[in-house]
Amino acid sequence: MSIDERLPFLLQKKHIAYSDTNALYILDRRLYPTYKSYFRCQTVTQIAQALQQMVTQGGGPLQVGLETMRFIATKIHHKEKKNHLTTFIEAAHQLSQARPTNTTLLRTLFEITDKISRWYLCGEIRDSYQDDLPTFVEEIISSYESYFDDVYDKLSDYGSSLIQDGMSILTTCFAEHSFSLAMAKAVEQGKSIEVFVNETRPYLQGSRLSAPSLAELGVRVNVIVDGSAAALMANNLIHLYMTAVDVVAMDGSMANKTGTLPNAIAASYYGIKYYPFAMSPDPNLLTIDHIVIEKRDGSELTTTANVKGYYPAFDVVPPSLVSGYITKNGIVAPEAIAKQFGEPT
Amino acid sequence: MSIDERLPFLLQKKHIAYSDTNALYILDRRLYPTYKSYFRCQTVTQIAQALQQMVTQGGGPLQVGLETMRFIATKIHHKEKKNHLTTFIEAAHQLSQARPTNTTLLRTLFEITDKISRWYLCGEIRDSYQDDLPTFVEEIISSYESYFDDVYDKLSDYGSSLIQDGMSILTTCFAEHSFSLAMAKAVEQGKSIEVFVNETRPYLQGSRLSAPSLAELGVRVNVIVDGSAAALMANNLIHLYMTAVDVVAMDGSMANKTGTLPNAIAASYYGIKYYPFAMSPDPNLLTIDHIVIEKRDGSELTTTANVKGYYPAFDVVPPSLVSGYITKNGIVAPEAIAKQFGEPT
Repeated sequence: MSIDERLPFLLQKKHIAYSDTNALYILDRRLYPTYKSYFRCQTVTQIAQALQQMVTQGGGPLQVGLETMRFIATKIHHKEKKNHLTTFIEAAHQLSQARPTNTTLLRTLFEITDKISRWYLCGEIRDSYQDDLPTFVEEIISSYESYFDDVYDKLSDYGSSLIQDGMSILTTCFAEHSFSLAMAKAVEQGKSIEVFVNETRPYLQGSRLSAPSLAELGVRVNVIVDGSAAALMANNLIHLYMTAVDVVAMDGSMANKTGTLPNAIAASYYGIKYYPFAMSPDPNLLTIDHIVIEKRDGSELTTTANVKGYYPAFDVVPPSLVSGYITKNGIVAPEAIAKQFGEPT
Repeated sequence: MSIDERLPFLLQKKHIAYSDTNALYILDRRLYPTYKSYFRCQTVTQIAQALQQMVTQGGGPLQVGLETMRFIATKIHHKEKKNHLTTFIEAAHQLSQARPTNTTLLRTLFEITDKISRWYLCGEIRDSYQDDLPTFVEEIISSYESYFDDVYDKLSDYGSSLIQDGMSILTTCFAEHSFSLAMAKAVEQGKSIEVFVNETRPYLQGSRLSAPSLAELGVRVNVIVDGSAAALMANNLIHLYMTAVDVVAMDGSMANKTGTLPNAIAASYYGIKYYPFAMSPDPNLLTIDHIVIEKRDGSELTTTANVKGYYPAFDVVPPSLVSGYITKNGIVAPEAIAKQFGEPT
């Protein structure tokens, strides 16, 4: 079974986003699981707005970014043969600015546009593809998809190896591919486990995305309010804390959905290990100060007219609160991140 | 101006609950501030159910308890002259069991039924009131209301004295009378302050009750998601943490709405003081182990059919995380609580 087939509905590539020559369609995670409906975008601007408006989130924008490159290549193919490199580059810019904190999208899209630039620089390449840009781009995108699948497979192997029989694992927000697969693999390994997920306000990614996805994979799962995790830790109901990360800096600090930090502090207070799944530490971010923390509109939190909301979307977690990052190279201590990931690949 | 007049709409006695000879009416805090509507109860069982279903919460049940004593006295007065002491005692039992963690209600109602027992034991008392039970009960209830008003006044004086010009104060859930008055007094004293309130899932007491009530008193207020407080502390945006408490035990530990503990741990981690407003430490609760933590139905948290919820309604906070309790005797260290409040009054 491919990695894609082992994933829950929500994380299979075709369910994150797909495109035809007219439009790109994004599964609307704001409505899931009540509705499985797709948000239709005809332009890159509309796609960027959809990301900004949280139509998809977490790791979703990365797959949307890859699919956008496919979409542009297909559209261009039907048009004149002028140099469209700037179209790809502008799209990469626009999408990666829509959600600035997670830099995997930005780095991946610029690696891809760098590869696409060869198409426009080199007549031999175009000839070897018989001028078929979509096929050229498809090969690039497919190789990235395979690479990420391999990363998810490795991370989930390392993640499941940290889980012992009888453990309860806490998670925040939607830790997506690697976490979901790690839980499924732990169950397959015959370990009796239980997952507690924070609701994750205000979009409820925990109760709406993580909980049904884990249940779909046969993992026992309970939803708790965001403020309850510490009480569960105090009562010895949590044995391990695991999340995704939006970005890891070279000093071993990280950012993830707001609500991650208080659990990391509480885990440290109660002697519980915290292992985030770090798909791609960012070699360009030298210190914690370089992390851009997205501030969302405070009105997303308020229902009363005369009250203001304040909504930083991400928490920064210092290295001292991280037991180890689960990476493609295995479990890496925060202080060893720069050594292992400091060189741009 | 009386204490009652200085309070926000939601905390004025007549807006918490009132009764006539037919029914007792409770302001439905589940609908506030969208609606100001009253939930009608004709029996003590209905009142207890209303408390269980969170029609009112926090300090609301205490005022409902007092009003229920009035309501019973009035109803009885219109009936035969038999001994109705058990009616009062059963009501006290039923109401205090509806929300078991906060013991102020239980202790107050049993002090009151103890006083009412004198009516049935002593003909001279009945004669001196010309057999008018409602007037007798009204005097008892009024004296309790005055006593509590005096406690709120004192606690808010002590609370406001802890606040310095320019401070940002974090609170969780609805810290009610003493906290609201403390913030208003700090503003009156010319201190520029700002309050951050956790939304407080799942009933959103923070965004629906605390935030509009503070705004009503002229206090600058921002709503944040429950998981964001630690990030604000990390960024030096919070200088003090203050909450109500549902119960304080004689070992200096306490219980309050779930979500209180992670903030107390984070406050300690960032060197921020935590002062809860302790209206009435419970001399009968010797240790933390005797605190009854109400577990509510997990389905209150889930919107998806195949996912379970787990919902302990309160956190237990150990004495080591409390900088001092704000009490009617001033600021009392957790380890001094037993000495100051160990004797039942």
